Amino acid sequence: MTSLKDHTRTGSDKVVISVDAMGGDSGPATVVAGISHSAEKNPRLHFLLHGPKDTLEALVAKRRVLDGRCEIRAADGVVSMEDKPSQVMRNGKGTSMWSTLEAVRDKEAEVAVSCGNTGALMALSMIRLRKLPGVDRPAIAILWPSRNPQGFNVMLDVGADIRADARDLLQYALMGASYARNGLDLQKPRIGLLNVGTEEHKGRAELKEAYELIGDHAEIGRFEFVGFVEGGDIPGNRCDVIVTDGFTGNVALKTGEGTASLIGELLREAFAYSPLSRLASLLALTSLRRLRKRIDPRRVNGGVFLGLNGTVVKSHGGADATGVSAAVKLAFELADSGFGDRLAARVASTAKQAQDAPQKDDDQKDSKAS
Amino acid sequence: MTSLKDHTRTGSDKVVISVDAMGGDSGPATVVAGISHSAEKNPRLHFLLHGPKDTLEALVAKRRVLDGRCEIRAADGVVSMEDKPSQVMRNGKGTSMWSTLEAVRDKEAEVAVSCGNTGALMALSMIRLRKLPGVDRPAIAILWPSRNPQGFNVMLDVGADIRADARDLLQYALMGASYARNGLDLQKPRIGLLNVGTEEHKGRAELKEAYELIGDHAEIGRFEFVGFVEGGDIPGNRCDVIVTDGFTGNVALKTGEGTASLIGELLREAFAYSPLSRLASLLALTSLRRLRKRIDPRRVNGGVFLGLNGTVVKSHGGADATGVSAAVKLAFELADSGFGDRLAARVASTAKQAQDAPQKDDDQKDSKAS
Repeated sequence: MTSLKDHTRTGSDKVVISVDAMGGDSGPATVVAGISHSAEKNPRLHFLLHGPKDTLEALVAKRRVLDGRCEIRAADGVVSMEDKPSQVMRNGKGTSMWSTLEAVRDKEAEVAVSCGNTGALMALSMIRLRKLPGVDRPAIAILWPSRNPQGFNVMLDVGADIRADARDLLQYALMGASYARNGLDLQKPRIGLLNVGTEEHKGRAELKEAYELIGDHAEIGRFEFVGFVEGGDIPGNRCDVIVTDGFTGNVALKTGEGTASLIGELLREAFAYSPLSRLASLLALTSLRRLRKRIDPRRVNGGVFLGLNGTVVKSHGGADATGVSAAVKLAFELADSGFGDRLAARVASTAKQAQDAPQKDDDQKDSKAS
Repeated sequence: MTSLKDHTRTGSDKVVISVDAMGGDSGPATVVAGISHSAEKNPRLHFLLHGPKDTLEALVAKRRVLDGRCEIRAADGVVSMEDKPSQVMRNGKGTSMWSTLEAVRDKEAEVAVSCGNTGALMALSMIRLRKLPGVDRPAIAILWPSRNPQGFNVMLDVGADIRADARDLLQYALMGASYARNGLDLQKPRIGLLNVGTEEHKGRAELKEAYELIGDHAEIGRFEFVGFVEGGDIPGNRCDVIVTDGFTGNVALKTGEGTASLIGELLREAFAYSPLSRLASLLALTSLRRLRKRIDPRRVNGGVFLGLNGTVVKSHGGADATGVSAAVKLAFELADSGFGDRLAARVASTAKQAQDAPQKDDDQKDSKAS
């Protein structure tokens, strides 16, 4: 149960998601199980499914809920987890990943979902969808369980690029604010710039410069800038969006995941320790399930590629059917809110307004925030 | 109960720890409670306690276990959490922190412990104790709960300096290996260099260079180099020592702490949810306490400053008596193992051997590893 905005009430048209059936650790059967699960829950969902024709036809035929709602696009090549992005950029044509992105490029589908190799997916997305005007480095944004009322914070970049200069960090702030508005339904998201605690350490030149730049664009970008935040604020409630470079963001993400998973393991060990604790764990089953649901990474599965002409959701490579279904849900919500177009408009208008500054923000009259 | 080596069996002489009574969030009463707790457990411990004379005398008089084992050194100045390191370097004389370090400098005590402002403590340590020959940037090392048999991994630097070039990262590897040998009793610690996952991202020039350098020094430094590791390996079992720059290490540390603390809160909420879950939590109390003990940050309280002429243990600013006692325990173990001298010898001999390479390691005949 995520607190992501429920858009199913706002329309009844079909929403087409382009799904890469290959490249995940658990194979196409898991992907088909995941999209079936989503299809059962949401009648507006339709799919374009990419991969080897015969295999997919057999899998889809077994799921009655996908009848007439899932079109198969034949693509025999598979991008493996070991393939280097540079190789995939040269030889990726004919793979299910390429075909998945092509459907978004051709406007046949609104959002792409893939469990495949992150580096390759970003590289192909850059050459097939191309960067939005005004964006130098696209970013990968994720949702992180937090103490905030919405239940999650947005963090970006978590690994699209290890470098980020002050201008890139400003773009991340704008894109992250837009994502939080559309994905978490926050009118005026609070943005924090990740740094280390001690005053004396606030020394990285690009962070000081980004601090100024992001602060200057708070009004135009319709967000609140809370300034520097620390690692402890990622799951905290001081801000809604954490902006950082892809190196730091990736380390933070994996450290948090690893710590959560270690605690989960130790919790299981603790409960298996004695007959009394095993009894307690039976009684606590519902409570523990509730907790698990709240912080289960499968339920917030999906890094979103921001800054491209088209939205791409990267599902975890090891995702099971629940994970795939969560990624599809996120893709649906972003498609249904028109997120891609609104993000593009926001980035373009901010770039323009920044040039024209100190002119007054002239899109305040838009009925919907972008 | 940490898995840190128990050195109490190896000797019976007294070990003097220099303790800063001031600067922590909870005041000198907590510090005195903490050292009393340690004194009760370990008869070899003696203290030099620094701070306002009258206050400390009154607090110490109430603790019979400290009778004849705790000498008070009057120092009226206090370094606050808000003081900038640069100010403290100019005006720090006369503070309890300065006096605490002075006792180590003058060889009256073997290790210093302070709950005060990290940046100020590092700045004062650098000017009073000075850097070891061959070390450009000292580092702060911490212990992190992990899946390894020893229960903890070492990570450094977690915030002494936001920059680290390849040579610094090599020094961190050598110092971290020495700490793991003496603190965790590992003969041949496995060192990992923190990076992000994707091949294409392994691009930071200083990391590639450090990879080569650390690999080349594995034999001389008596460690195993496992290569690049990711954030998920910090609490994992792929390596025992994680080497990174102080910016990344600080963010990772605080992200992990924040995530663990969020899970703890959610766990409490989950157990308070219904009468049944409250009953379960009563039955599970022992199991949960066991888990808490295993990952309680107070039990592994203490960042160690490495690379100085003298060992300094930085206790958490918010430490309670249990936390202070854990920091004193760590200080005792490092003092008793002669860690400071052995680290200095190791750094010096490695620097020398690196110059003389490819000569054979000539201190393999040392009876004790440094």
